[in-house]
Amino acid sequence: MKAAFYEGKKTIRVRDVTRKPPGPNEVQIEIAYCGICGTDLHIFLGHMDKRVSIPQVLGHEMSGIISEVGENVKGWKKGDRVVVRPLNPCGKCFACQSGYAHICYNLKFIGIDSPGAFQEFWNVPADTLHKLPDFLSLERSALIEPLSVACHDVRVGEVKKNDYVVVIGGGPIGILIALVAQLEGARVLLSEINSFRKDFASNLGIKTVNPKEVNLTDLVFDQTDGVGADIVFEVSGSVAGASMVTELTRVRGRIVVVGIFNEIPKVDLFQFFWRELELKGARLYNPEDFEKAIQLASSGQLPIDQLISEKYPLSQIQSAFEKIESRSEIMKVLIDIKGG
Amino acid sequence: MKAAFYEGKKTIRVRDVTRKPPGPNEVQIEIAYCGICGTDLHIFLGHMDKRVSIPQVLGHEMSGIISEVGENVKGWKKGDRVVVRPLNPCGKCFACQSGYAHICYNLKFIGIDSPGAFQEFWNVPADTLHKLPDFLSLERSALIEPLSVACHDVRVGEVKKNDYVVVIGGGPIGILIALVAQLEGARVLLSEINSFRKDFASNLGIKTVNPKEVNLTDLVFDQTDGVGADIVFEVSGSVAGASMVTELTRVRGRIVVVGIFNEIPKVDLFQFFWRELELKGARLYNPEDFEKAIQLASSGQLPIDQLISEKYPLSQIQSAFEKIESRSEIMKVLIDIKGG
Repeated sequence: MKAAFYEGKKTIRVRDVTRKPPGPNEVQIEIAYCGICGTDLHIFLGHMDKRVSIPQVLGHEMSGIISEVGENVKGWKKGDRVVVRPLNPCGKCFACQSGYAHICYNLKFIGIDSPGAFQEFWNVPADTLHKLPDFLSLERSALIEPLSVACHDVRVGEVKKNDYVVVIGGGPIGILIALVAQLEGARVLLSEINSFRKDFASNLGIKTVNPKEVNLTDLVFDQTDGVGADIVFEVSGSVAGASMVTELTRVRGRIVVVGIFNEIPKVDLFQFFWRELELKGARLYNPEDFEKAIQLASSGQLPIDQLISEKYPLSQIQSAFEKIESRSEIMKVLIDIKGG
Repeated sequence: MKAAFYEGKKTIRVRDVTRKPPGPNEVQIEIAYCGICGTDLHIFLGHMDKRVSIPQVLGHEMSGIISEVGENVKGWKKGDRVVVRPLNPCGKCFACQSGYAHICYNLKFIGIDSPGAFQEFWNVPADTLHKLPDFLSLERSALIEPLSVACHDVRVGEVKKNDYVVVIGGGPIGILIALVAQLEGARVLLSEINSFRKDFASNLGIKTVNPKEVNLTDLVFDQTDGVGADIVFEVSGSVAGASMVTELTRVRGRIVVVGIFNEIPKVDLFQFFWRELELKGARLYNPEDFEKAIQLASSGQLPIDQLISEKYPLSQIQSAFEKIESRSEIMKVLIDIKGG
């Protein structure tokens, strides 16, 4: 069988490997599609070589069909259409014992810390599986994982009907948060400086603004009768975003940190005191977020197919990564594993 | 009657003024004691001249006895022993309509934005009053206002029995937070670099640490079996404190910002994402916090009398402010208004 190995900075090579049967409590999945995540790109660029063992098979935004079931596995059979929640928590630490296994102190992320889905057949623990409805396409299902992130973020943000929500950053996750928050009945404004992304979001029916062209704070206070935003999602991971969140949020409003900050930004803690603001971090997902994402993807209420910019066969995965690196006018790229 | 007026940087002068009767919906209070708050000191030092109209009578940490009742006032009579919750919200804004009148968008703070309690007789709206039990001394009652701040902070922090709590900063508010959290059954560690304050807190039965002598992060993780603190109160308003909070707090733990930051600090937002931390600002108090503070002060369970470092008569208020400014080995200074 074919598998794509990250072999060091900017190098992913497809090689023939022996297909191994699933171990006890594992299933083997024949992968259909696997998206390229921002983290995969970081790894490709060599930014995470301290964490990733080389060579390593990456990929975790996948869909597929169970091809083999290991010993002791109950409730799953060959032919089941599935996605994987790619988390391997220790089960013993404070977080695992307290219902926060997704942020386990010793979390292993499958597809980063152990082999991922950029291969034809993938063995994973059966307790990571979520079942797909028959009518949900495997292509669309490759977006379940990022959609689960957005469902988690919106849940942590406690978005309610009629809330005024600002999303700072219009990449795939920011757009999915905006779409899910809109479905919850919120009024959403997405702030994005990249015109391709801003136009892309607008075309999906999201209200957008470029904060370099319009005074975002004035706009938000104008649209909320001087009150401010109920909830602000910081998805850009930028110093400018970290500075904006405290300006936009109303008294007792909520800020959700979703973006990954590569540098430590300044944050106006006086405003937290003065207006009793709240800030919460949101990372990954719980099982219920995957179930919610599958339900939303199945409902047809979200135009998520449109996020798929391009598809590449597994044999061209190196080109796919290079394409993402070379230009910003792209949303989500899928690898069609069975496409050759 | 006598009243002390802030007349500009480092100048407070006691003058004779005409005693005016309370207006409709007001009562007049004969002031017994009034503490000097950190904000009063800021004003004295000229830091808040843009906000304060000069001359202005300061003071809001008071106790006293109703001397006269204005028109339309129900439920209060001459001789009632009281403290004042010195807030004058607009009643109309989003915050007021949402149960957050204490952080009203147009809040007037009585004793800063309007005359305060450094005078013999003080007219205030009747709806700011809280009744004192007969057996609670007026001297101790002058600490009700800062104790209400601590009660509010601990409530916002949702401190529960057996929580491991770190308080960064051991001034009067930090110490009161530590004492109230201990009463709630929390294990408390107070971090303070000033040896007078650290020893003072230790003598009140609070566990203390100087983070310049001991690695605070190692200590907290050691004492919590590698988990981290459940709740961290940032009361120092310092850049060092803002940097420490994200190191100390456990997965899904809570940080409460109580300190006033005069500069915008760096805050490690990546840690908020990674461990799904929560940060909440806490300012002032609600009526229930005053009732809780009166109940705690009455119970005798808190050694709050010991916070009173010195008392000065009203005639020596200028010396009292100068004394606080000149040295750090001081906790709370009261003005004994009837002391001359």
